[in-house]
Formats: sequence, C-alpha cells, structure tokens
Amino acid sequence: MKQADVVVLGGSAAGVTAAVTARRHYPDKSILIIRREAKAIIPCGIPYIFGTIKDPEEDLLPDSILEKNNIEIFISQAAGIDRVGKIVHTKDGDVRYDRLVLAIGSSPIIPRIKGAELDGTFAVYKDIEYLRRMQNRLQQANDIVIIGGGFIGIELGDEINKMGNKNVTIVEIMPHCLNAAYDEEFCVEMEEHLISRGLNIRTSIRVEEIRGNNHVESVLLSDGTELKADVVVFAIGAVSNVDIARSAGLRVGQKGSIYVDRTMMTSDPNIFACGDCAEKFSFFGWRASELKLASIATLEGRICGANLFGITRENPGTVGVWATSVGELALGTAGLTETMAKNLGYQTICGVVEGLNRHPAAMPGASKMKVKLVFEKNSETLLGGQVRGDNTAAEMINAISALVQRRLTAEDIAVFQMGTHPALTTSPVAYPLVNAAEIAISKKRSSSN
Amino acid sequence: MKQADVVVLGGSAAGVTAAVTARRHYPDKSILIIRREAKAIIPCGIPYIFGTIKDPEEDLLPDSILEKNNIEIFISQAAGIDRVGKIVHTKDGDVRYDRLVLAIGSSPIIPRIKGAELDGTFAVYKDIEYLRRMQNRLQQANDIVIIGGGFIGIELGDEINKMGNKNVTIVEIMPHCLNAAYDEEFCVEMEEHLISRGLNIRTSIRVEEIRGNNHVESVLLSDGTELKADVVVFAIGAVSNVDIARSAGLRVGQKGSIYVDRTMMTSDPNIFACGDCAEKFSFFGWRASELKLASIATLEGRICGANLFGITRENPGTVGVWATSVGELALGTAGLTETMAKNLGYQTICGVVEGLNRHPAAMPGASKMKVKLVFEKNSETLLGGQVRGDNTAAEMINAISALVQRRLTAEDIAVFQMGTHPALTTSPVAYPLVNAAEIAISKKRSSSN
Repeated sequence: MKQADVVVLGGSAAGVTAAVTARRHYPDKSILIIRREAKAIIPCGIPYIFGTIKDPEEDLLPDSILEKNNIEIFISQAAGIDRVGKIVHTKDGDVRYDRLVLAIGSSPIIPRIKGAELDGTFAVYKDIEYLRRMQNRLQQANDIVIIGGGFIGIELGDEINKMGNKNVTIVEIMPHCLNAAYDEEFCVEMEEHLISRGLNIRTSIRVEEIRGNNHVESVLLSDGTELKADVVVFAIGAVSNVDIARSAGLRVGQKGSIYVDRTMMTSDPNIFACGDCAEKFSFFGWRASELKLASIATLEGRICGANLFGITRENPGTVGVWATSVGELALGTAGLTETMAKNLGYQTICGVVEGLNRHPAAMPGASKMKVKLVFEKNSETLLGGQVRGDNTAAEMINAISALVQRRLTAEDIAVFQMGTHPALTTSPVAYPLVNAAEIAISKKRSSSN
Repeated sequence: MKQADVVVLGGSAAGVTAAVTARRHYPDKSILIIRREAKAIIPCGIPYIFGTIKDPEEDLLPDSILEKNNIEIFISQAAGIDRVGKIVHTKDGDVRYDRLVLAIGSSPIIPRIKGAELDGTFAVYKDIEYLRRMQNRLQQANDIVIIGGGFIGIELGDEINKMGNKNVTIVEIMPHCLNAAYDEEFCVEMEEHLISRGLNIRTSIRVEEIRGNNHVESVLLSDGTELKADVVVFAIGAVSNVDIARSAGLRVGQKGSIYVDRTMMTSDPNIFACGDCAEKFSFFGWRASELKLASIATLEGRICGANLFGITRENPGTVGVWATSVGELALGTAGLTETMAKNLGYQTICGVVEGLNRHPAAMPGASKMKVKLVFEKNSETLLGGQVRGDNTAAEMINAISALVQRRLTAEDIAVFQMGTHPALTTSPVAYPLVNAAEIAISKKRSSSN
C-alpha cells in the first residue's frame, strides 16, 4: 500500500502550495499528491488559451515544482476516505496518510435552464482534453454567447473574439459586467472597452432557454430576443467539490464548502482543507464568503501546509484581492468596494484620484489611471481600494492590499512612503494612494463642519 | 507689501506638495509660492529630456496644480528672511508671512578637481535654460564622460547614448554603479545591461583631472587612462541649499541641512522646512540620512503642509524607496539592502526568489524577475526589499514599502494576501513576496537546528 506522512488530494494551486509549504516546514516528512489529471492546468490562464497562447499545453502548472521539492505524484482518482484507518481509496489502490489535505477544488455551475445540456454548450472545466475540444469547436463557430459577465466571462469573451471573425455576446443578469467585483464606474469603463473591441454586451437580462436540435442554435433572453449561437459558454461561477468529504462524514459549512477553522483544519484534526473546496470567511466581519480565487487558494495552502504537525498560522479572513485585464486596460480591487462596504452596513467616505501613470506626460506609455480608496467614515480605516490602469495596476492593488490588511487609516496613508520613477509611476506630487487618502480626509473634515 | 498666511519658498516637488497640502488642511488660509524659475521643472524627469522626450519644455511641473488650489505664484529670488518681522525679502519686494515653508532644494556637487570649471562641463541643475544649453552641447558632442554612476549618472548616460553616435563612459569611484542603492548582484545586472546597450563603464576608479584648453578635451583617471571628452557631466550627488536659512539664524543639522524636528518644524516655530534642503533621519535607528529624493520631498511636504497651524503629523523617518529604469530593466529598493543592513549592525537573513512576471510562461511580456527580502535575523522583521523586473517593479516595491513601514515579520508576509493575474503578475503559487518570506523562514529554521 502506498503511504506518506502528508497526502494532498488535488494538484492545482491550493494542493501544490500546501505540498510545497509542507516540504518547507517539515523537511523530513514524506509528501504525496494524488491528482486526477495527467497534466495540471493553470486555472487563471484558461481564458488565454483561446486567443493568446493558443495551445492548452502552454497553460500547465509545471511538475518540476513538485519534483524539486521531493513531492511524489500519484495520478489517480480518489473514491473515498477511511478516516479511522487514515486511508484514501483511489481507483488505483489505497494510500495511507498521517495528515490529509483536501484541495479538491470546485466545479463550474451549469444553469438549470432548458437546453443547458445541448451539444455546443461548454463550461470552464480545468481539463486539458475538454478545453481542447472547446477550442476546436470555437474555431468553427461564428456566433458565441457567453452566459455570465464576471472575470471569466469577460476575459473569455475577449479571447474568443481575438480568434477572428467571431460574433461574441456576453449576457449578464446584473446591471453591469463585473458587478460583484468593482464599483459601477469601473464596470462601465470595462464594458465600454469591451464594446470598443467588438464584443456585444447585454446586461440586466436573463437567459430563459437555450434552443436547438441536439446542437445549440440560439439563446432566448428574458426580453424575448433570440441570439443566434453556435457555442454557448457558462461562466456563472463555481461550487465547491465536497462529495468525498461529505461521504467521509466531514462537516460541511453553511455555504456548502468543507468546514475549516482558522487553521484550515476540518472537523477531523488529521484532515485539513484549502482552496476552492474549503469554507471561507471575510476579513470584514468574518461573514461566510463565496469568493474562489487562485490567490486565496495559495494563501490557504500556505496556512494549511505549515500547520499540519503543529499549528503556527491562522487565517485572518479573506480580504479579496484581484485584477482583471483586457487588452491594455486593467482593473484591480483589494478589500471592499464602496458598494460592498455599504451592503455590509459600513458608512463610507471615498477618495478618488485620476491622473497619469508616468511623469511627465510626455514619457512613453503614459496613460490615464484612476484610484479609489474606500474608508470607514468614522475611524477612517481603509476598507478597500480599486485601481484602473495599465499592467502596473495589479501590483498597485497589492500595495493597497497591504494597507487594508494592516488596517491603516487615511491619516496613516497620507504619510505613506512610496517610490516613484518617471518611466514607471505617477509623479510623487500626484501619487494616487496618498492623494486619495488626503481627499478623503478633506471630505470628512468639510462634511463634519 | 505682498503677504499671505502661508508663504512657501521653492516651487519644486516639496514646495508644491506643502502648498497643496496646506490648502487641503487649511481651506481658508491664503497661500503664496515664491520661486525663482518662470517654469518649474520635474527633477526626476531631467535625464529623459535628452533621449526620450527631447524638449525640456515637456518636463514641466504644471502650474495648473497651484492655480486649481488657489495658490498664488510669485516669481522672484529670495534674498533674506526677517524672522522677527516675519518677512521674506526678495529681489522684487518684501513678502509678509504668518507661516513660512522652506523648500529651497539642493544643488549638484561640483568636484574639487582640476578642470572642473572648463567649458563643456555640466551638472544637473533644475534650470530649463541651462538644460537646453546642455542639450545643444550634447548634440554636437561625440565623447561624453559622466562622473558618478548613481541613479542620475546611469539614467543620464543611457539617455545621452540614445541621442545617437555617442561614446558615453560612466566613471564610478565605488566597485559598482548604483553601489549605494542596491546589493551587488543587482548592480552587476544593471552594469551588464548598460554595457549591452553600448555604454562604457569604469568602476573602482577616480577622476584625477579634467584636461583641456578652455574647453574640455579629456578626463584623466587614477590608473593613468585618459578618456577623450567633449562633454563632462557631474552626477555625484547634491548638497542642501541652506544659505538663506543659516543667514536668518536657523539651526543647521549635522549633515549640513536645515534642522527640523519630526513635525518638519525648524528651530523657529513659524518656519517649517521640507525636501532636499531639510535634515532627514532614517526609519532604521533614526540616524541622520543624506537621501534626497522627490518622493521623500513630497512625504515631507505632506507632513509640513498639514502641521502649519497645529501639529497633526510626525515623520516616521525616511524608509528610502526608489526605482531605477533603463530600457526594459527596472530595479527598485524599499528600506535597507543587505549591505546597508549589515553596515548598520543588523544580523540579516534573506529570501531570494527568481521567476517569471506572468503566468503561464507563454503569456506575452513574460520576463524574468527577482525579489530579495532582507530580514533582521532574530525577530524576522522585514528591513527591506529589492526587485528586478519590468515596469511593474516600482509598484511591487511600493507594496514592499508598506510591509517595511508596518514592520511586518517573515511570518506575517508568508500569509500576505495578494492578487494575481496571468497578464499582469507572477503565478499565485510562485508569488515572490510570500515565497521569499517562506525561504527566509526555512533558512532560519535550518540554521538554528
């Protein structure tokens, strides 16, 4: 029987990070990853297979990371867990563990509408053969309808549009694409950008039915419009994979993910969970959160991997940090948007700065950027920030994330020490983080006079 | 007689920021800036005048910032300060103040060597007419020697090289260019990059003499080499402008800059100072610091401008955050390098990560990046970080700066929550800040076993 001190079930971002972290913290333990896929795909890279990198084989998480860290790989599918015997049953035999990490991910949601099962409908599965079939089908398709205008929907839409001679329509039930990720003004900018790139966008509208005779032919919307469609892609989110955990008697949390405490331990002290399959709580108010992101998965993997044989790390709660990129336009959020903050009951005060991302304006690459910081009005604690800019936006969002995580106030941020450079950043006189904080301070002062 | 509640002497980064901050914090006060130059230049943009933006007029700090904030501009040269009468004497009449801000900057150091005064020698003065003359002279020159391989020296060298058909040599007395700004391995990379772009570099060598008959003809080095030169540029640093402050009886600090306390107040409670003219202390050990950067100047301007009629802000000490960019290569530092930390007496432990700045590797723009984090060995507190990468390096350095300023430990950083995106950042599995922290933790653990 195979056995290892640490067995990790799942070889995507969470599993790999948990395994590598376990190796760093427990150099003497044997570590084994069980994964279904012969080749592990990089989940966030999937949209780029279609219009940019072209070949799904170019979107792989290299096994060299595991080999370098002396982590054994066992390609098989888990069938059950015997918690008393500490054994994972797989299709290819049993594996005994001392500590088990569940990093079994999530599955895309398939909407319960008529026609969802027709040939020509796809969802974003992390499966290289499936994605290759989807790619082939898209190459032949003229009319593509993407259901869902979140991150994946718009990035996929733009990439499919890049394949050439495609008529791509994104259908979003909310008033705007990216509605759950950015405040309205940022969503509108991205929508205009997508439209300028040739995509069609239909918002505030529901898909009633997918029509066709075996194959997809059209999509019927709630206003009666019928969109011609050769391919339909579902991009409406994902649900945690929990079946194997539930069958093993592990507790499942209120949002349907595997229960974990702040140490990433499940209801069984020998079993930990991380990534999309694991329950998440927000950094803000510790409410259950349904965010599923690779960056969160790796955070949880780093907590989980360190804690396996002695707790040293606790999850401070999911801040929520992400970026979206289409062409030259990038958006990013760290923490709460103004809308999210208000929905959670915070009184907010915002500072917004628009300016150039280089200085002087004549520097090559200079383009407009925008930063919005959201503060709790009374304490002036930073709740979140959003950036619209070029490819530097994601690292600026990471700077904002640091400020959110340490609960800095507007006053703290006003004396934040940053570096600037003509070819790389805004002017130090106009640096948007500090100026947005100053603007929020001024607004609060004038509102309380 | 002209008068204003707030008079700011100097219209560069520090003065403008102090004035704008004063406007935000004291909406009812009258504010006046006295500056010598009809047009204020952006100091960090000066190197780019020569090879990139071409026209010095494109490197101006726009007066619109001042106009928008209802700040009066008075173009004149200050001749003295009457602290009892609270009057600034200028060549064009007296100006009465209630609070005075000195933001009078620094002047480039001219080395005391034979020939330094010859026609054809230049230093980097923030003066548009001077820079235009320098530009004209450089256009006609073939052989250019730059004395000093710091930020300004190398950026200027590369920009002059871009002018075409130039033979540019940078002479640096230290073992490497950028020796005071980055650890050796980063300096070496930049030197190799500069050489690959056609520049000549001479390090560990001193300039003995500049030779010529009225005009510069050559530069004699300490090993006897004589470099042909039509133009020589001094880029060996700057000294604070303090004459007017000293004459007015204000205290001058140990490094020859205007004394200020943590609130940016000088020895006269009605006079504040900020920017290159003001004394600086390090965030690390509160030692006197000779750093002079526009980003520091704006920090001090924001402290000073807020404090004029009631102290609300204190200077936490200069962290030191900067970036350098030549072609596609950018370097950045926040806080202490390993060398600096050791020189200050810290025991250090470092985490170094090299990887790609996009994921997967097939994404456009993917290039190698490197992050080095320096921790105090015992407490594992972050002392500083360095980044080598593309144009996103400066904002990543700003994220590191936030971690340094809040004195995070390696353990804190290992659970840092960042956002990632295929087109914008490294993979979340390989995110260099968290991985560098993990590496430092592992190294410490194995060194203490």
